[in-house]
Amino acid sequence: MSELLKRLSLNQITLNKLSLKECVDLCVRHQVGWIGPWRNKVAELGLAESARIIREAGLQVSGLCRGGYFSAPTATERAAQIDDNRRAIDEAAALGTSTLVLVCGPAPDRNIDAARGMVADGIAAVLDHARSSGVKLAIEPLHPMFAADRSVICLVDEALELAQKFPAEDVGLALDAFHIWWDAYVYAKLEKCAGRILAFHVSDWAVPLPGIFAARSMMGAGVIELRRLRHAVEAAGYSGPIEVEIMNEALWNRPGDDVMEEMKRTFAEHV
Amino acid sequence: MSELLKRLSLNQITLNKLSLKECVDLCVRHQVGWIGPWRNKVAELGLAESARIIREAGLQVSGLCRGGYFSAPTATERAAQIDDNRRAIDEAAALGTSTLVLVCGPAPDRNIDAARGMVADGIAAVLDHARSSGVKLAIEPLHPMFAADRSVICLVDEALELAQKFPAEDVGLALDAFHIWWDAYVYAKLEKCAGRILAFHVSDWAVPLPGIFAARSMMGAGVIELRRLRHAVEAAGYSGPIEVEIMNEALWNRPGDDVMEEMKRTFAEHV
Repeated sequence: MSELLKRLSLNQITLNKLSLKECVDLCVRHQVGWIGPWRNKVAELGLAESARIIREAGLQVSGLCRGGYFSAPTATERAAQIDDNRRAIDEAAALGTSTLVLVCGPAPDRNIDAARGMVADGIAAVLDHARSSGVKLAIEPLHPMFAADRSVICLVDEALELAQKFPAEDVGLALDAFHIWWDAYVYAKLEKCAGRILAFHVSDWAVPLPGIFAARSMMGAGVIELRRLRHAVEAAGYSGPIEVEIMNEALWNRPGDDVMEEMKRTFAEHV
Repeated sequence: MSELLKRLSLNQITLNKLSLKECVDLCVRHQVGWIGPWRNKVAELGLAESARIIREAGLQVSGLCRGGYFSAPTATERAAQIDDNRRAIDEAAALGTSTLVLVCGPAPDRNIDAARGMVADGIAAVLDHARSSGVKLAIEPLHPMFAADRSVICLVDEALELAQKFPAEDVGLALDAFHIWWDAYVYAKLEKCAGRILAFHVSDWAVPLPGIFAARSMMGAGVIELRRLRHAVEAAGYSGPIEVEIMNEALWNRPGDDVMEEMKRTFAEHV
């Protein structure tokens, strides 16, 4: 197996209709050594059982999706989100990963700057718990098409500025090619992320786009310069697992074995 | 009528099922003094007749949509696009507007940097013709959700850097709130645009988004801080017409008089 393929990780949502157990079995059968679970799938099976089947299958966990959503309308709701993030940190630790991906959340009203402040406050509030649990917080800048409903943090430089409010050993970035490829300055920005990159995700941007949330395609089916982006995150010091994270209705309706085969082939060819 | 309402312009695509003549009549009936036609609607009626009915109605033309699409796969196609942009400049001049909006075009392959170079070359190729026609070229940075199929130019700072390759009297920016609102640094970037802003467009970003191309909503129906953005472009020296440009299937199916009433009311309230 190539060194690159050894870094391939199945993000669970790529096979969103399957259980965590089914995804673990597929990884074993297709010799994919990493998996990136989602919390809802872990909850279905139970945390302890999820950790057990992943460990016994010999898989490593590249990261847990997801914490975040710090920007809620009331102080009570924000406190509840902070509690939920502490649980997400516990889950990441129990699953054996040091990376919790943060989707930071939308603005509860038109005041997007205030929402960005709530995100910073939320991260600050869970920082000690993350550190003592051995978990790093990976801020994921989302594509600006999700600015209104998922994340007020959209730009690589913006996410880096937010991360830099905190120590590099605690807070970094989850960089997903789908979210950042279009930025005219992305390569210059990635250089500045050296020492802060905690995760790298791939998929592709096909034309026409197959949806808004379920908008992503298999590597090579779109316009993203995936290899160039991989080399850029590597030049910035990241050499960890690379998750394939594809939300796509048509893909979700295909047999898991087919998806795994195509994922490995297109990953090797395009990433 | 308020000073703000005197600046209101109907971008034709907001009533995309109507002819230019119908839109002109609606503007007169609703005391909207400006119109922003699209070339396809001008072509339906003929350029001379379009110019005549607009002039005789006493309307001013805020800008023509649109030139651009400079980034084509072959030199022959790029030359054809440059010719088409020269025609668009002629049409703008004939319609009595000094502003041609440029939607710069997508990359013909995965090489987005090369496409950006083609855009710069295309603008350079039509610059003399624009100047001698009394028409300024307004580069419109499009929302990154359109980076793959409509415009490789997405960021305000990127569009400004491109415009600054050319004299300020020839090339500037068309800034649309829908495209730029999500940028964490948008207000700092707008300050730097002083002297380069040629157009300002408004609509809103509703959640959930009603579509991808037809994605926009009436002012106030979404999350954009429209008044704050207007004040920012004014602080950067822009005091010209403000186009309401809304692509939205549901809106297109409503009676024109209803849309005009709502447009005026929500413009006064939110912009």
